Amino acid sequence: MGEFELIRNFFAAAPCAQGGEGVALGIGDDCALLAVAPGEQLAISTDTLVAGVHFADPCDPFLLGQRSLAVAVSDLAAMGATPVAFTLALTLPTVTADWLQDYARGLNLMAQGCGVALVGGDTTRGPLSLTMTVFGRLPSGQALVRSGAQAGDLMCVGGELGNAAGALPLVLGQRTADPSIAGSLLAHYWSPQPQLALGRALRGKATSALDISDGLLADCGHIALASKVGIQVERSKLPVSAPLVAFLGQAGAEEAALSGGDDYVLAFTLPSVELPGLLAAGWPIHVVGRVVSGQGVTLLDNDGRDITPQTRGYQHFRETT
Amino acid sequence: MGEFELIRNFFAAAPCAQGGEGVALGIGDDCALLAVAPGEQLAISTDTLVAGVHFADPCDPFLLGQRSLAVAVSDLAAMGATPVAFTLALTLPTVTADWLQDYARGLNLMAQGCGVALVGGDTTRGPLSLTMTVFGRLPSGQALVRSGAQAGDLMCVGGELGNAAGALPLVLGQRTADPSIAGSLLAHYWSPQPQLALGRALRGKATSALDISDGLLADCGHIALASKVGIQVERSKLPVSAPLVAFLGQAGAEEAALSGGDDYVLAFTLPSVELPGLLAAGWPIHVVGRVVSGQGVTLLDNDGRDITPQTRGYQHFRETT
Repeated sequence: MGEFELIRNFFAAAPCAQGGEGVALGIGDDCALLAVAPGEQLAISTDTLVAGVHFADPCDPFLLGQRSLAVAVSDLAAMGATPVAFTLALTLPTVTADWLQDYARGLNLMAQGCGVALVGGDTTRGPLSLTMTVFGRLPSGQALVRSGAQAGDLMCVGGELGNAAGALPLVLGQRTADPSIAGSLLAHYWSPQPQLALGRALRGKATSALDISDGLLADCGHIALASKVGIQVERSKLPVSAPLVAFLGQAGAEEAALSGGDDYVLAFTLPSVELPGLLAAGWPIHVVGRVVSGQGVTLLDNDGRDITPQTRGYQHFRETT
Repeated sequence: MGEFELIRNFFAAAPCAQGGEGVALGIGDDCALLAVAPGEQLAISTDTLVAGVHFADPCDPFLLGQRSLAVAVSDLAAMGATPVAFTLALTLPTVTADWLQDYARGLNLMAQGCGVALVGGDTTRGPLSLTMTVFGRLPSGQALVRSGAQAGDLMCVGGELGNAAGALPLVLGQRTADPSIAGSLLAHYWSPQPQLALGRALRGKATSALDISDGLLADCGHIALASKVGIQVERSKLPVSAPLVAFLGQAGAEEAALSGGDDYVLAFTLPSVELPGLLAAGWPIHVVGRVVSGQGVTLLDNDGRDITPQTRGYQHFRETT
């Protein structure tokens, strides 16, 4: 038995590969089989992470296991879908038992938290990279797409922004920080929590949604383009965390919130009539602006002046996505 | 707009990305959405191809486009599924318009032939590799799995074997051949035709099935293991093509048929009562052996003597799968 066949057997025996609701056939055959209930659709998303491009190489395999799955599952949250299953295509230059065990431990932990089962994939030799394809279910016609924003809607986010971007100089070893600050920021980077429950709560309420991966301004631009509307973001309303402000200062924290990728917080548009009920139910929703007729994204200061930066999207150590 | 965003727009505009039956939402949102009819299940398979491991680098991007999709869709054929959609995760070191256009042309051609729509994916910078995830539909409970073979069944294949393995020295430039021979063998390697119609015809008839990717003996071993049976293969019954015999000689052709990967012909077990009807319907089925009680795969010569080779699976320029 070759070492890559051993790896496949190793993943097949992992806790997260032991099936779940909707999984009719898991790892081990030519295909996995998923059952989809009548009246439901299947949501699908694929993400690739390349060593040295999307994450530092070497990095902690346990943290990579968590993050690689979280990043992919976040796309399900952004559609309002309930996770069902995922496949993992893992390309490795060499195989070490320690690396695999630590990676699988992180993967299992995130899979358990998200309620998602490993149903297949491929393991190959080559430069380190990972491609995750995730599957979720949701009632037909209730997906949160990008194209439904209407002028007059509120522009909202599901939590504090910029923490993952703030963590990046720590991840890359370019800066150090007080342990309490570093711990908080690094947790956001390495184990983002896909906002699955919020996504489901927004079904039938939000008019558009996505998860912030390119930065608030860039991702609002995606909604504006798909919905053929303009979006105004107010700088004074950006929710930033105390550790981020302590680390970068207020202006730096706001920059990270505007342009930092990797937060995987939901951004969505909401008719104002829906806001009170969602806040009363305890959802951590922050209104950061509004949808207007027109096109593109405009950043406004306290006095309503246009202070839109010329360069959108955070340029970190990956050149592109 | 970055060059990788341009690539995404390029693929979104490709003919194969314009939707199809079962595709409720295609490229451009956080997820694609597939509709699954009541009484049907979704079959899923993922395959990664790495440059220099699974294909020569550089290679003809048009041929790579065809082959990368065919290899993945072949897993749907092996389950008896009807193709619906696929995602493409493409990692590229540099972007050239010529490469992309040629690759997409091959991809479109194979997608059209298989009736499958591109619904999403990811495009990233890094060493050249491709991960395809394919989706098919099939009636619940009718999938052709590996685990149902019964002692007494016939061991069958859906066509000639060994052509792709025979092509490999040509692909690698290690040998040359007469153009008519080279053309025939290379076609099998670069544009294998997934046996989708045969897979569907075997639903409810074959007791197990897979597509031959590791070589007949190795893949019969997968059925034997999953079904807890033994399989006897008769060397004299191996279907080999005239071009392959002309290129490798009879013994060499039989070796390629036994151990050569990449044929993507279906191998399946069939109760003998099912054979006449399938042959009468014109399916190109070759009986190469039979299922017995016991375990493992045994190769028999004309006199029924055990001539099982010690090393199974073809060692070509990829070290492992």
